[in-house]
Amino acid sequence: MNAPNPRYDIIIIGGGPAGLSAAIYGARDKLSVLIVEKGIMGGLITETEKLDNYPGFPDGISGFDLTEKMFKQAQKYHAKDLNAEVLSVTKSGDGFLIKTTEGDFDAGAVIISGGANHQKLEIPGEAEYTGRGVAYCATCDAPFYSDKTVAVAGGGNAALYEAMHLTKFAKKVYLIHRRAEYRATPVVQEQVHKNGKIEPVLDTIIESIEGSDFVERLRVKNVKTGKESSLPVDGIFVAVGLKPNTEFLKGIVDLDEGGSVVVDDSMRTSVPGIFAAGDIRRNSIRQVVGGCGDGAVAAIAAKKWLDSL
Amino acid sequence: MNAPNPRYDIIIIGGGPAGLSAAIYGARDKLSVLIVEKGIMGGLITETEKLDNYPGFPDGISGFDLTEKMFKQAQKYHAKDLNAEVLSVTKSGDGFLIKTTEGDFDAGAVIISGGANHQKLEIPGEAEYTGRGVAYCATCDAPFYSDKTVAVAGGGNAALYEAMHLTKFAKKVYLIHRRAEYRATPVVQEQVHKNGKIEPVLDTIIESIEGSDFVERLRVKNVKTGKESSLPVDGIFVAVGLKPNTEFLKGIVDLDEGGSVVVDDSMRTSVPGIFAAGDIRRNSIRQVVGGCGDGAVAAIAAKKWLDSL
Repeated sequence: MNAPNPRYDIIIIGGGPAGLSAAIYGARDKLSVLIVEKGIMGGLITETEKLDNYPGFPDGISGFDLTEKMFKQAQKYHAKDLNAEVLSVTKSGDGFLIKTTEGDFDAGAVIISGGANHQKLEIPGEAEYTGRGVAYCATCDAPFYSDKTVAVAGGGNAALYEAMHLTKFAKKVYLIHRRAEYRATPVVQEQVHKNGKIEPVLDTIIESIEGSDFVERLRVKNVKTGKESSLPVDGIFVAVGLKPNTEFLKGIVDLDEGGSVVVDDSMRTSVPGIFAAGDIRRNSIRQVVGGCGDGAVAAIAAKKWLDSL
Repeated sequence: MNAPNPRYDIIIIGGGPAGLSAAIYGARDKLSVLIVEKGIMGGLITETEKLDNYPGFPDGISGFDLTEKMFKQAQKYHAKDLNAEVLSVTKSGDGFLIKTTEGDFDAGAVIISGGANHQKLEIPGEAEYTGRGVAYCATCDAPFYSDKTVAVAGGGNAALYEAMHLTKFAKKVYLIHRRAEYRATPVVQEQVHKNGKIEPVLDTIIESIEGSDFVERLRVKNVKTGKESSLPVDGIFVAVGLKPNTEFLKGIVDLDEGGSVVVDDSMRTSVPGIFAAGDIRRNSIRQVVGGCGDGAVAAIAAKKWLDSL
């Protein structure tokens, strides 16, 4: 007979702001909490160099520093963590069985806070040149493009921030967007327009990424005139959105058309005992403070669920 | 003809964490924002000496310091503030007219974040002795009770925290609750049970507060035995809950039976253009991080509403 799996009151899948906030709230309530994170603790926001809108830090703070503080806070109340990928979540007795790449665990309640990942352009050359000129994180890869010419694809806040960050290194940044104007907030657009290194390229789609060993040019097309042309660049940063990390949840909890987890206002999913929080859930505002609020709500709801067992 | 009222994109009623977070988000989006606060900026949480569960501060932070940082952050993006009480909110053109004790203002959108206030016991002597032995905020008034004997009425987290705080000053603290056990989270209950200065008084209601110039005793009744007795105390701290500050909103937006503002998951009230956030809205978790999350959601929804006008 096998030894029983280690059991936790709450297993939190994903260690970004939502998961860390849930861990703080759960662990401080004396529940046993395990955070399972497949990448680095802190999640996608660790790529953000400066966060100006998390309330409480008027001078801004890096995503890495902020989530490190949150992790420390969760550990203070004895939350545990595991670096592993979750393979499946299944009902087991009055709780759940969580299979991971580092072993199996039992949980009374599950909080899904696996966030969202970078959306791909899905064009020829993108996969081929990833890591050789195609990048998804300026904070991570910008230093490789000193005095080079790069492009950023996208029109939201993230894209414009990436472009501005890149100008600290690159000599020129094309900011390519398929529509006639960017979607980013006015204050951010204004900053971009003041930045002499950024050249807006609007009404334009990228058809393919080309080069030899590394990226050398983009094939682009103006959607208004239909004119195609070649744009010489040394790299391209893709910032066209995020996709919820819910592949492993299909058939387990209800997802919406975009793949986000459907929740009520207590962060309860379609399965009693499973909760979701942060960027992975439907209608998330995709802001750190929103994720943290969600995490607290989910942990409080999970505690109520555990008390009811 | 009168001069037109000053007009803001968003008027935020209440400057607690929810209102300040909404102000940061609104002002950073280049909207003109006015925060109207009748008391001190920061709201009820300014009374909390140490906040351990706001994500990002592993060593804890006082409510005053945290909200001061948030206010500074909102001011950085040019949010304005006004110390006044809101008298009424009425529809006016495509926006709203806000009458306050310091003048009238027009707003495109309104965010209600007026929080909640201390619930009263509503027993004989309470009003009479308020400020003379009856108190609602240990952080504010505990130092007046050095080496005295005091009571705390309540059984939730707030009551237990008040009792612990009081033991730093008072020689003895009765913690009186009408039920057989406290509602507070286990970790907090444990701390209370370890505290030699706190004497639990369970299954007990307070019938009246008596004294001469100041409070001298409580008339209490054990609800299980029916026995009445007199408990000599120098003061009583009432911590039996919070009541949403929605008196001025009756007939304006839908409220639930408890007086909280009814909202959807974008913090929209029953009136398009009016939003609510934080402790004042239905199903609030009444936590600073929850209020901040709400504030960001409300500001983003308010911006969408303004864009649609």
